[in-house]
Amino acid sequence: MPEQDITTDFLKRLLANDDDQLAEERLAEIHPSTLAPLLADLGAAEIQRLIDLLFVRHRAAAMLAHLPPELMPQILEDIPDQRIADVLARLEIDDMLLLVEHLPSNRREIVEELLPPSQRRDLMRAELYPPDSAGRAMVTHFIALHQEMTAQEAIDAIRLEGDSDDGGLHLYVVDEGRRLLGVVHVRKLVSAPPETPVGGLMVPELVSISSEADQEEAAQLVARYDLLALPVTDPDDRMVGIITVDDVIDVINEEATEDIYHLAGLSDSDRVYTSARVSINKRLPWMLVNLGTAFTAASVVGFYESTLDQLVSLAIFLPVVAGVGGNGGIQTLTVITRSIALGEIEFSSGLRAVGKELWVGLVIGSVAGILAGLVAYLWQGNPILGLVLLLAMMITMTVASLLGAAIPLMLKSLGQDPALGAGVLLTFCTDALGFFSFLGIATLLLEHLL
Amino acid sequence: MPEQDITTDFLKRLLANDDDQLAEERLAEIHPSTLAPLLADLGAAEIQRLIDLLFVRHRAAAMLAHLPPELMPQILEDIPDQRIADVLARLEIDDMLLLVEHLPSNRREIVEELLPPSQRRDLMRAELYPPDSAGRAMVTHFIALHQEMTAQEAIDAIRLEGDSDDGGLHLYVVDEGRRLLGVVHVRKLVSAPPETPVGGLMVPELVSISSEADQEEAAQLVARYDLLALPVTDPDDRMVGIITVDDVIDVINEEATEDIYHLAGLSDSDRVYTSARVSINKRLPWMLVNLGTAFTAASVVGFYESTLDQLVSLAIFLPVVAGVGGNGGIQTLTVITRSIALGEIEFSSGLRAVGKELWVGLVIGSVAGILAGLVAYLWQGNPILGLVLLLAMMITMTVASLLGAAIPLMLKSLGQDPALGAGVLLTFCTDALGFFSFLGIATLLLEHLL
Repeated sequence: MPEQDITTDFLKRLLANDDDQLAEERLAEIHPSTLAPLLADLGAAEIQRLIDLLFVRHRAAAMLAHLPPELMPQILEDIPDQRIADVLARLEIDDMLLLVEHLPSNRREIVEELLPPSQRRDLMRAELYPPDSAGRAMVTHFIALHQEMTAQEAIDAIRLEGDSDDGGLHLYVVDEGRRLLGVVHVRKLVSAPPETPVGGLMVPELVSISSEADQEEAAQLVARYDLLALPVTDPDDRMVGIITVDDVIDVINEEATEDIYHLAGLSDSDRVYTSARVSINKRLPWMLVNLGTAFTAASVVGFYESTLDQLVSLAIFLPVVAGVGGNGGIQTLTVITRSIALGEIEFSSGLRAVGKELWVGLVIGSVAGILAGLVAYLWQGNPILGLVLLLAMMITMTVASLLGAAIPLMLKSLGQDPALGAGVLLTFCTDALGFFSFLGIATLLLEHLL
Repeated sequence: MPEQDITTDFLKRLLANDDDQLAEERLAEIHPSTLAPLLADLGAAEIQRLIDLLFVRHRAAAMLAHLPPELMPQILEDIPDQRIADVLARLEIDDMLLLVEHLPSNRREIVEELLPPSQRRDLMRAELYPPDSAGRAMVTHFIALHQEMTAQEAIDAIRLEGDSDDGGLHLYVVDEGRRLLGVVHVRKLVSAPPETPVGGLMVPELVSISSEADQEEAAQLVARYDLLALPVTDPDDRMVGIITVDDVIDVINEEATEDIYHLAGLSDSDRVYTSARVSINKRLPWMLVNLGTAFTAASVVGFYESTLDQLVSLAIFLPVVAGVGGNGGIQTLTVITRSIALGEIEFSSGLRAVGKELWVGLVIGSVAGILAGLVAYLWQGNPILGLVLLLAMMITMTVASLLGAAIPLMLKSLGQDPALGAGVLLTFCTDALGFFSFLGIATLLLEHLL
């Protein structure tokens, strides 16, 4: 059955079927990632039955790990504590953390108590790493070899790994202190005579990341060096885990969403499937900030009310100056924010980028200003009005470009998220400056304008 | 030497050194992806020398494949035709295509003539796939096994693969017609007795993609099913290549940039290192479109000039209505565009999402409207003015949310990029509607306002 034909209705019919074995079999044919988003529309009883059926064939854990994060709290609510603990016990540590993070704190304690002691300890250790760190994104499950082992011994170690999906791909060579020495490609192992020492087949591994570093940095390293897995080391330089490329893809998608969202003043957890109530709660505070800045900018207009009173047609052009300036600023902000996210820019190249954007803003502001000025002149038959519009647009666009480049770089150098709040701050500046420059120049030239 | 200490200055000093062997050795220690962005600041002679030095140690191809796309045309200009052909001959087909695409068409022909015949043929075949298709992103280099081969024969096949970096990880089982049957994990091969037939070790492979499909779809499949490589099939269902996960990461980053850029009305090739001249050329057309829509929206204000003339303080609130409405619309647009990019939304769930966003817009518009109305009333001492602002903001926000959800879904169902132009169109609608609703209602209630 093609995966796109698997709808919520199909799933509901399957769950309504009394024949457990048939239902188990059909469910086992469906990939966990196809099932996960369908849970949004199931009732509590249906969710429980689904988890029970999947659990028999060891598929419940994978399915829950594939749930969109915004669905997790609601779905977990419908599953009994013991069943959650059973499922957690079958997950890799990174997915375990992901699920536990979506439990309310009192329930989290109860569920953790129900875990087998060794896994409870693993989980508590993992929770010590900072949020969004490499330590939280890693799995602690990898094959460590020693230089003096033979190729045959290494192959035996792979065999012992057993059932793990990724096992056998990432073979690391460490010294007695568990410090990372290098990596051995599995192809080299099978091609070499069985008694060859692993040390001779190893390539020195230069790229690794500290467990305390941000997971975004890990993703940049994997993307940059085309790795299938990135070794993670603790502060004593001992290798403690690996971040696998499939998790890196999730991090990259997550961070891209964060960037796009922050530019629009949205909270990360406000997704397409988030309930309207939650979306409203997340967006209202930003909307109030936005309203506050909009009124502050509007007060600039209020300050020049007497100028407007004498020449009311000025009001027509206020939104043009502010809108076009804001647009130019957002373009610059987007280019710089994205280049920071992709790790393309450092402080030194950042200064050059500010210079470039300033120049681009000046040129585009001049061209747009000349055109807008001409249109205003022809429309209102007033050449001085055209001149006022030209000057205001040049000033606004140039400053907008400067700020669009400088704000994210400053936020970044302060250790803040470069996109968070930048859009709101920028729009406020361009609005206020647009109104101030246009009405201010108009007031200075008022006698020529009338 | 830590990679972050490798600056353009260091590279320039290294290239100025006459000792070729020393320079070659030092360069060989630096990862190609670290070198690539530094080329932006080198002169033509330096670039030629660098390529020559790298070429000796087979590193020039990897370095050029890691160049940021916006630097490629400029760097390739400085390298002689024959050297480019030599470098191309050492690249996988996907990277070969990437480089060739950045050559001007007349030069492209000359360079292709210089390639060895078999590679020229490969390149011409790859160029038949549509731009941004899975066929263009794939490598044709993978290990195909047959069911009746033994595990030992399969291991011998891996050994024959020789030098390729990825070789040996992706083992596919095909029938006589080269149709994909399944995949064998290398761990299974080494663990099994040497005479076991491959057919018994194979897992049926259900996920593959057509060579004509969009590369973004390929990236979604790899992300969804946690694959290390995705098989690509031709229209006759024969396996013709694989897309590897490192290329998928590039595609994901590229597509995320495209989304963020299109929301801001930016062209993909307008990057932080793009020259100011190119950036200006790319942004000017959008700026003119923006200017056109801004003037059109402003003409709505012009239409109500006599109302403004009678109550000039209305002008203060115009940007508030338009700005807050535009902001709300962009938030909805961002949520929906991102969910389309991540493959989270289909047409049926799309309609539900429109309904949700409409409701969110109405609630937030009402809250923001009540607050804004109160502020306007207290500021101007005019309760009717507050009412006008409340009504205008409710209408604008609700319609803005509806459009923010509907525009990308409509563009998507028409086969267009959901983000391209959506921001400009939306801002125009919210501006025009904001002005029209606010001034229209004010005109209707004018006698109570004065």
